[in-house]
Formats: sequence, C-alpha cells, structure tokens
Amino acid sequence: MKICKFIINDLVRNGIIEDDLIYCTDQNLRTEEVYQISDVKFILPVTPSKIVCVGRNYAEHAAELGNDIPSEPLLFLKAPSSLILNNEEIIIPEQSEKVEHEGELGIIIGKICKDISANENVFDYVKGYICLNDITARDLQRKDVQFTRAKSFDTFCPISHFIETELDPRNTTVTTKVNGIIRQSGNTSQMVFPVDYLLRYISQQMTLLPGDIIATGTPSGVSKLEHNDICEVEIEGVGKLINRVVKKA
Amino acid sequence: MKICKFIINDLVRNGIIEDDLIYCTDQNLRTEEVYQISDVKFILPVTPSKIVCVGRNYAEHAAELGNDIPSEPLLFLKAPSSLILNNEEIIIPEQSEKVEHEGELGIIIGKICKDISANENVFDYVKGYICLNDITARDLQRKDVQFTRAKSFDTFCPISHFIETELDPRNTTVTTKVNGIIRQSGNTSQMVFPVDYLLRYISQQMTLLPGDIIATGTPSGVSKLEHNDICEVEIEGVGKLINRVVKKA
Repeated sequence: MKICKFIINDLVRNGIIEDDLIYCTDQNLRTEEVYQISDVKFILPVTPSKIVCVGRNYAEHAAELGNDIPSEPLLFLKAPSSLILNNEEIIIPEQSEKVEHEGELGIIIGKICKDISANENVFDYVKGYICLNDITARDLQRKDVQFTRAKSFDTFCPISHFIETELDPRNTTVTTKVNGIIRQSGNTSQMVFPVDYLLRYISQQMTLLPGDIIATGTPSGVSKLEHNDICEVEIEGVGKLINRVVKKA
Repeated sequence: MKICKFIINDLVRNGIIEDDLIYCTDQNLRTEEVYQISDVKFILPVTPSKIVCVGRNYAEHAAELGNDIPSEPLLFLKAPSSLILNNEEIIIPEQSEKVEHEGELGIIIGKICKDISANENVFDYVKGYICLNDITARDLQRKDVQFTRAKSFDTFCPISHFIETELDPRNTTVTTKVNGIIRQSGNTSQMVFPVDYLLRYISQQMTLLPGDIIATGTPSGVSKLEHNDICEVEIEGVGKLINRVVKKA
C-alpha cells in the first residue's frame, strides 16, 4: 500500500495511491473521497526529526571511493531542510564542482524506538519504505572530512512522495539511472549491514521517532550530475523517484 | 528577557522568567497569570528541525585536540533526540569510555533564513541565546571520524530551559565548571569565526528555520566527565545550565 499526504482545496489530506487515483483516508480508514493524482499537490509524507544515513554499506561503493568497509555502521545526519519530493529540482550549489547521485532504500520509522533488543522484530518499528537520493557534493565531502555540509544543501535529499508499507527490504533491487542510462545497480541483500542490523544498531545509539528516515547506503556507480540531467532512483516493490538537476546561472 | 515554555495544570504555556516567577504570555503579551518557578515543569523552549554545530571555532580548543584551525567553519549536526534541559541527567552510554563536556553559546533562530546577504543584519534572524553543552564521546569521535554518533547519544545536548533575548553575543564569557572547578573559560570575542559570520555562512549552506539551534563552538579545556559529576555551563548575560552526570550500572 502506498500512503501519502497531499493538498487539495487548500486542505492537507492523507490518502492511498492506486494507479492514477488517490483514495482519501481518515484515521487510516479509506473514505468515499477519490481524486486524480494530477489534481493534487503532494507534500512530504513525513516530517522527520532527523535523517540518519549509513555510509559505505555496500562493499563495492566503499571501494570505488577508496574506503575500507567499516567494522560497524558509519552514521551521519542530513539536515531535514534538504528534503524535496519526486519531480522537484535538485539544485547544484555554486560551492561545488562535483555533485553526485546516491540512490538508496529509505526506511520510515513508525514507532518510537530505543535499544531494540535481539528478540524483538525490528520491522514492528517500521512504517514503510521510500526511494531516496542521498545527493552529495563529492568535492566538499573530501575537503570538509565531515559529511554534513556536502550532504545537507537544500534539495539534496529527494524522496518518494509516498511510503510503501509492504516490502521485504532484505532482497530488493536499487537502480539509479541518469538520462535513462543505468549508473548504479545493487540488491539490498548485498548490504554490509542489513536493514534489521542497522535499525537495531541505530536504536542503540539514539532514540528514533515516528517519521524519522534511515538512508541505508548506496551501491557502487556514483557519478557526477550535470545541469538538465534527469536522475531516477527505482526500487523494486517501491517505485520510482525522478528529479531534474538544475545549475542556476 | 528570558522566555520559556512550561507545563502547569496539564497545559503547555509560554512565559517570561523574572527571578523566581514566571509571568504567562499569550501571543507574546504578558498576562495577569503568575507562577512560582518551583511549581511548573519546564519543557524544551524550541523544537529544532536541526542542531547545527561548529567545530574548532576557538583556536586553543582546536590545538588541544591536535587539529588545525579550519579555513572555513566546520559544520556538523547533532540529533535533536539528544536534547535535555537544565537539571536533567547526562547519561554516559556503555559504548564510550571517555565522555567530555563542551560548554558553548547556543543561538536560536527566529525567522526562516537562506543566503543572508552582506548588507543584512544577521541578528534580525535571531530569536535569542542559550547555554548549550555539546557532550561528546571523545573516543568514538576519534574512531568514527564522522562526529555524528559521538555527539548524538540521548542526553548529549543539554540546553537552558529558557531563551535569553537580549545579549551581545560578540563579547561575552563562556565558562564551564565540573564540581565547581573551572575547566573551560573563554570569551566569544575569541571565536575564529564570529557569530555574525557563522550565521551568514551557515545560511549559505542550508535554509535555517525558526527554532533551529546553532552551537557556536567550545573554548579549550574539555575534560572527561565521571559518574555523579555536576557540570555547569555559565554564559555571562544568559545564565547557568547545570546537569548531573550518570553512568548506569
């Protein structure tokens, strides 16, 4: 099921997307009200208190940037002000000469969690899954050492305009294309630290709140984005996230 | 003026602190309602969408950790889930053997800002100032390289229970004591990048939202905190932030 938030007639509504239609929901129950997707304005499906990202979580990607595989998950944060939706523009800031895509599976937290224990099912704390593009100013990432600035510019975190609630995140493909050409292709089964390990681990470092986003790392094949490129992140069982790249003159 | 949020009779209220009294406000105007501080429960004065921190912003502190002074502000983020208030406990997590204090001046953003220009007054975007303790697991900071985990454990961001709206942040003392003994003492005039420079710079990297917190860096003298220590950050013109340190058995 694909759940979303949108604006129609100046009101914020919740809904379920099926093909080209949105069925409005009230208290999670489907109502009689239905709209065409083309008639609504989608807004962020969540307002995260934080976006926790995992670096170097696919071995080939760690290698392509000259890094070792970490011995435990490498965490960093992206500023929530970097979020944009499907179809919105990724803006290349003037500070960077090398902005790259990183297509990733995103996880949306559904329930507050802290220290998830070994005998709990981590998926009880998950609301669903999104496509996420962890846009990165590679030159600034290398210069600053801290990833924060390189990954937190406005528009640097495109996400799906819906949350897919049904998915086995342990075995699904993550493909990123630029102008229709495949640049990154991986399967979540190749993660160094799989999704259940990540969630348990992160919950041991900090309390996760409903709506928080976990970005699970990117496969190899990251490449530079240019003005007017169309970047597409597709996750099997979730859908597609498409954004145009713009460099302001 | 010290503004705050608190709970009384199960309701969240806004107020102004004067000595031991809180004068309730409604739409920023003082009402007839007054409470004793001891009768209310303070809550966070803001709900930040992000906490942006500046590393190595006092030359002597950069040197004591063996780092050069950065050529531009070094930014990182702390998770908002790390926030606690005055009088709450800093919990040493079992992952770290070396948790340290970093007393700092915190700035609260009052208005949305992006690309503050050279001829604008940055202080027009500031709501006020707080004492902030950027608690850091020094061993994990060195191990991870990325500062995120070392600085984002729950309870690792104690802040004042009020916002001081009147202060010249360019020339005020920041003093941190442990069990009454001064460990850190600096003046904000010693910052490598002063407050106005920082705000303008950060607004060029990411949009700042009302309630966002900027932690402006710590003077030299950071030291390890032990179970039962009382850590106190005092900023001239703002007040004191006092927290006990607890290591769970």
